[in-house]
Amino acid sequence: MTVARTVELEGHIIDSGTMGTSFGIVMDMGGEFEVEEFEVGRRKHDESYCRMRVMAENEADLKAILHELNQNGATVADPRDATLEAAPADGVVPPGFYSTTNHPTYVRVDGEWLAVEDPEMDCALVVEGPADDPRVRTVVLNAVEEGDLVVTGDTGIRVEPPERPRDGGGSFGFMQGGISSERPSESLIEEIADEMRSVREDGGNVLAVCGPAIVHSGGRDALAELVREGYVDGISAGNGFAVHDLERDLYGTSLGVDTESLEHPREGHKHHIYTISEIVRAGGIEEAVAEGIVDEGVMYECVDNDVPFVLAGSIRDDGPLPDTITDAIEAQNAIREQAHEADLVLMLSTLLHSVAVGNCLPSTTKTVCVDINPATVTQLIDRGSAQAIGMVTDIGAFIPMLRDELLESE
Amino acid sequence: MTVARTVELEGHIIDSGTMGTSFGIVMDMGGEFEVEEFEVGRRKHDESYCRMRVMAENEADLKAILHELNQNGATVADPRDATLEAAPADGVVPPGFYSTTNHPTYVRVDGEWLAVEDPEMDCALVVEGPADDPRVRTVVLNAVEEGDLVVTGDTGIRVEPPERPRDGGGSFGFMQGGISSERPSESLIEEIADEMRSVREDGGNVLAVCGPAIVHSGGRDALAELVREGYVDGISAGNGFAVHDLERDLYGTSLGVDTESLEHPREGHKHHIYTISEIVRAGGIEEAVAEGIVDEGVMYECVDNDVPFVLAGSIRDDGPLPDTITDAIEAQNAIREQAHEADLVLMLSTLLHSVAVGNCLPSTTKTVCVDINPATVTQLIDRGSAQAIGMVTDIGAFIPMLRDELLESE
Amino acid sequence: MTVARTVELEGHIIDSGTMGTSFGIVMDMGGEFEVEEFEVGRRKHDESYCRMRVMAENEADLKAILHELNQNGATVADPRDATLEAAPADGVVPPGFYSTTNHPTYVRVDGEWLAVEDPEMDCALVVEGPADDPRVRTVVLNAVEEGDLVVTGDTGIRVEPPERPRDGGGSFGFMQGGISSERPSESLIEEIADEMRSVREDGGNVLAVCGPAIVHSGGRDALAELVREGYVDGISAGNGFAVHDLERDLYGTSLGVDTESLEHPREGHKHHIYTISEIVRAGGIEEAVAEGIVDEGVMYECVDNDVPFVLAGSIRDDGPLPDTITDAIEAQNAIREQAHEADLVLMLSTLLHSVAVGNCLPSTTKTVCVDINPATVTQLIDRGSAQAIGMVTDIGAFIPMLRDELLESE
Amino acid sequence: MTVARTVELEGHIIDSGTMGTSFGIVMDMGGEFEVEEFEVGRRKHDESYCRMRVMAENEADLKAILHELNQNGATVADPRDATLEAAPADGVVPPGFYSTTNHPTYVRVDGEWLAVEDPEMDCALVVEGPADDPRVRTVVLNAVEEGDLVVTGDTGIRVEPPERPRDGGGSFGFMQGGISSERPSESLIEEIADEMRSVREDGGNVLAVCGPAIVHSGGRDALAELVREGYVDGISAGNGFAVHDLERDLYGTSLGVDTESLEHPREGHKHHIYTISEIVRAGGIEEAVAEGIVDEGVMYECVDNDVPFVLAGSIRDDGPLPDTITDAIEAQNAIREQAHEADLVLMLSTLLHSVAVGNCLPSTTKTVCVDINPATVTQLIDRGSAQAIGMVTDIGAFIPMLRDELLESE
Repeated sequence: MTVARTVELEGHIIDSGTMGTSFGIVMDMGGEFEVEEFEVGRRKHDESYCRMRVMAENEADLKAILHELNQNGATVADPRDATLEAAPADGVVPPGFYSTTNHPTYVRVDGEWLAVEDPEMDCALVVEGPADDPRVRTVVLNAVEEGDLVVTGDTGIRVEPPERPRDGGGSFGFMQGGISSERPSESLIEEIADEMRSVREDGGNVLAVCGPAIVHSGGRDALAELVREGYVDGISAGNGFAVHDLERDLYGTSLGVDTESLEHPREGHKHHIYTISEIVRAGGIEEAVAEGIVDEGVMYECVDNDVPFVLAGSIRDDGPLPDTITDAIEAQNAIREQAHEADLVLMLSTLLHSVAVGNCLPSTTKTVCVDINPATVTQLIDRGSAQAIGMVTDIGAFIPMLRDELLESE
Repeated sequence: MTVARTVELEGHIIDSGTMGTSFGIVMDMGGEFEVEEFEVGRRKHDESYCRMRVMAENEADLKAILHELNQNGATVADPRDATLEAAPADGVVPPGFYSTTNHPTYVRVDGEWLAVEDPEMDCALVVEGPADDPRVRTVVLNAVEEGDLVVTGDTGIRVEPPERPRDGGGSFGFMQGGISSERPSESLIEEIADEMRSVREDGGNVLAVCGPAIVHSGGRDALAELVREGYVDGISAGNGFAVHDLERDLYGTSLGVDTESLEHPREGHKHHIYTISEIVRAGGIEEAVAEGIVDEGVMYECVDNDVPFVLAGSIRDDGPLPDTITDAIEAQNAIREQAHEADLVLMLSTLLHSVAVGNCLPSTTKTVCVDINPATVTQLIDRGSAQAIGMVTDIGAFIPMLRDELLESE
Repeated sequence: MTVARTVELEGHIIDSGTMGTSFGIVMDMGGEFEVEEFEVGRRKHDESYCRMRVMAENEADLKAILHELNQNGATVADPRDATLEAAPADGVVPPGFYSTTNHPTYVRVDGEWLAVEDPEMDCALVVEGPADDPRVRTVVLNAVEEGDLVVTGDTGIRVEPPERPRDGGGSFGFMQGGISSERPSESLIEEIADEMRSVREDGGNVLAVCGPAIVHSGGRDALAELVREGYVDGISAGNGFAVHDLERDLYGTSLGVDTESLEHPREGHKHHIYTISEIVRAGGIEEAVAEGIVDEGVMYECVDNDVPFVLAGSIRDDGPLPDTITDAIEAQNAIREQAHEADLVLMLSTLLHSVAVGNCLPSTTKTVCVDINPATVTQLIDRGSAQAIGMVTDIGAFIPMLRDELLESE
Repeated sequence: MTVARTVELEGHIIDSGTMGTSFGIVMDMGGEFEVEEFEVGRRKHDESYCRMRVMAENEADLKAILHELNQNGATVADPRDATLEAAPADGVVPPGFYSTTNHPTYVRVDGEWLAVEDPEMDCALVVEGPADDPRVRTVVLNAVEEGDLVVTGDTGIRVEPPERPRDGGGSFGFMQGGISSERPSESLIEEIADEMRSVREDGGNVLAVCGPAIVHSGGRDALAELVREGYVDGISAGNGFAVHDLERDLYGTSLGVDTESLEHPREGHKHHIYTISEIVRAGGIEEAVAEGIVDEGVMYECVDNDVPFVLAGSIRDDGPLPDTITDAIEAQNAIREQAHEADLVLMLSTLLHSVAVGNCLPSTTKTVCVDINPATVTQLIDRGSAQAIGMVTDIGAFIPMLRDELLESE
């Protein structure tokens, strides 16, 4: 153990797991640690403090350990300014660039800790602005421009992973993870409704990420109502969701199943492709609403109530609507804007779009994930926010219950 | 092709698939066929008739082909009486015994076709009674007694697989198979409620096969209400379901989760084992109800309303209640009786018990399978009745909706 | 029943199910039928013939029934030429356009039945070329150009759904559907290897559709070997697959797990994003191979052996490689070309890309679907080819076994 | 906060999570804590020590908190002897009995800490033997006998949850949980083989818990070989597994699929029931082996090599073999003995039997869980041992690879 460095941890580092994790990181990565100072928070609201020396056999190992500790909230003692290096070309980051977490992050520039704007995972950090008032932006790799000053290495970076809230935090618990179909539906829905009401009262933004199962399983009308009544401030979905929603209006079917009578009109499986051609003919969803071709449903309510939507294309689509963004990068950028504005994200039966939105979220945004597939819920909760509710249930039952909870109590 | 035999098919054999299947059987098994006579049903209600000669290279192959054709509804022309052989010992069937399908079946004894009682899959057929009034019983292998006259071979046996109903049959469709989470929930629930009402009006019997998820996910109160209001005439479940239901009453939790407040009282995971010990102490569920220890829930309503229940034990149980039948054979016998009495079976979130009940059902009993896991629904529908509805949904949402549909429309 | 029309069916229509399906269609859709002539194929190789009159209450119902019958292989007797209508604008089809199946299809133009080129589902049919030598192309909706002569209605169109092969067809069975994890792996893999060898001998084309799980679960080296040895003629994948494959080469990890030692180098989860930035810096995969940055793996072997690949982008990607087609429409077009050239498609652990490829395939292309998730295999087999093998197994076990089977027997 | 008590924690309580969990328990359950003394383990091998005062509003709350802390390894300071109470009747525990964890546990009797024999979850603790040499047995509730001295309350009980091993522990990691299909198969199989070899060298016991999928998917021969070569010391399975294994020998099929040729002999689905009747006729598996009816396979090798097996019955069985224990309690007792003897448990594609075995295991027994269903692996790992490996893979690929690894390296 020839090289060493001292790091500090501060906060509710015992019950939030930060300290245990830090010990584990050092041991897993072949290092040693020596606690130099430790002050335990004696009571619930007292913070703890730990200063420890981390040792490794060589600089490379030490660097790797420190990087990992840093991402989990430990800060190197005696901090120096972050290292900046100019990007050599558009879309090309300098070697050794700092790749972000989704936690609140601070970068030390000229001796000052600057809060990073819009924290998002797996991005670069770019320092810009006047020397007397610099700012640190989170920039996705392909948006880095030649000459951008990109942060490299781990020096001068402080990450603040979420801590266990002192008050329990209700169902939006701290890293509970325990998603299960075995949790009682009704009371959980009440909590979600409460959160939606409180976001609304605070002038916040609720983003609904929507999959086609909403239409197939009978949740469409309730979702349309929530849009109309102002409980949803944005929709993020795929081309498929929009087509299914519009097909339901145009033909009374979704994927060819009459959702009222349950009859399977055999010719129905062509309605999907007919719907696409109708909307293409009209020129787009807004035009189809204006022409009176479309007069109900989720997309209709979006147009009618000026609720913005982003429709992203996919190679699986039967055909893009004029409104659909077919380029993945452009679509990600549009989704990123939605994600940054959101205070609460409802991920409703779509893995692809939920992952896309989740990728752009800071760890502080509350999320609700509902899917009938437990694996989908687990995957979304695991990568997601520190404050997430996962429900394994039928989306066609969930949305109407949420609607009733929100509208009947008004 | 040195050996041959002639078989006949009759009925709606084209659209029910019987004829295509028969051709396929012969080809798949290396035989040849020659249609000797074919009369097509020219209109919807006309039956078709096909007589064909089936050829194979040797007697063994022919026998195998004829067996398979027989099980699918083809009957050997010029029938002879069934072959009977005495069982050599208790539980031991004669070699070459006829193993049953779950379709309506007829056995030719003394020139007369006798309907088999209680058709059930994978059993033996035993002919008994006076020579002038013989009967054919379906007997599970381990219940065969020494000396029982058991049917062997395929001679003199006629099987009648279900035919496609001429009137569509609604959602209890003919071998639809198309289970999907994408079917609209509400209208399907209406159809199930209609069927339950109609069974009730006809004095029929509705059997609910229940898994613990009913309690965990919030469907318990609604199910208890259905029992109280007389919509459920029998419960088939495991020890676990009963304990979870009782725990909910005794401790307000299920598996330690407070189902009202959603708090996770940390000590709760012991309530399951405490509940078992409380009921054991009382001497059983009925005694616990009598003592006032248990005063609500599904098991309570069963006791209070004289709705019979069968609780089967399993090696996974934390401990058996006094009411639980721990021997698998005894439990199967009890389940068999329930199955024979049932006109409609609701399979609610339990694979094990649903398979156990399904094994005892004739192909003519209507079944409804609800589970959040698509694989479970598929497996149950595939082996089951010709008239089955499968729903992939949250049982905690399904039962309350079914309750509302049944009780609010009263 | 005031309107009627006569249709004909011909071929192995009983055991292929066509005739039963046709009866079912008429009954389900509220019509009536009357069989006017029926000649049964008396022996295995004899074809059957059925002419029947289909009746409905009005023209609209009749049209719907005839459309459905047509798509299932029934042809209206006394055919007339197909109706053609010019597309009003780019990307806009005429109302009532004929939307294709993926079966071999013929269109009647000037009294002649022309085979449709590259049959593919949910497209339009465009008739073009000189009057004395017209051709019928399958055109995806968004590629229709103003003035294109598009087929509308069902008149003059003949569809030939696949028939049950007379020789059994081995595991590439006829609509077997019975996908299951319970089929013995080794012998099935032998059959797949046989098919690959036979495609290779005939100078055919094997397309591998690849998901990232191939790399994570240890199937990468074997797949690279199959590419090198010439058993794979094209790769269709997402950006993620390529990045995981390249990461494995650059850092010895996949998603941060060292695939040799199983250690989880904690810093590894950043390797994914570092890999992207390395390849971007080099300018692309081919450039990275040329520079010696990448020297093994699937993508390396593709470059080294001139095996073409298509990488499609998605909104879930952490960042696109320079080689990745980020526009969904462009990517679909590239995939379409791959699909048209393929004689055998291996769908290896990716639902998204398999659906995208499958959407472009005619029903006559053999496909093999391997995934650890039964629902994925079922979904792919259900929509896919008439000759498909589904295997529910670990891709990391499957590919090495396939490699051994192919290379060790050389 | 009117009542309080002092507890102590000792060991690697920071990185094993014990201390963080203890803080969390107190906060979640509405209590307060005050750390009175804290000594941090300064280096990797140093243990930490914490003494804290726990406060609650009333005795009931305090008791609940202390119970939970106790189960997680905190011990009340100034311990007193455990409270003992006589069981009022057979199978009936005294109210307030101590329900066990599966961790190593000590009970204080006459001032001495006695190690509990055979720790197992959800049991009672019974103190027995002479006053000068008492012992503490773990007794399942239904085996408690009238007059047994049962431990009640939490006083005088010390639980030792597993600690994070200081050396990493390889793949049998500490509560890694991170089961995934994305881990490289081959190296993981090597580690499992190493563990099996090391257990064998130490004269230890490997218990294989077997599901029918082993036979269906082609893993049977390899497992039979492992039994023959002495790598498996016991088999725990259901009636179904044995019947499938024997059917494979008697008819060359499993569930009617010829596992060599992949043909589906249509008559095959009856082989299962025929197999049962053959073995019943012989009188049992050993008798069938002696008569030469059975001459290969897993059950054959068990008989031939004196490897003991337990076959448990279930209500789903088509019929019990004479060897099958149909009573769930008797079967659990037999399984319990197997579990206590095992040093390594392989859970191979069966949820039911794995849970049954897992229920009887102490947290110190190493386990390996292999299943194609991720949910099954997760469920088994979550409840199981602190040292568990989970693999989501095809059992038909896994066992042959494990066999090759073990036998080819000999």
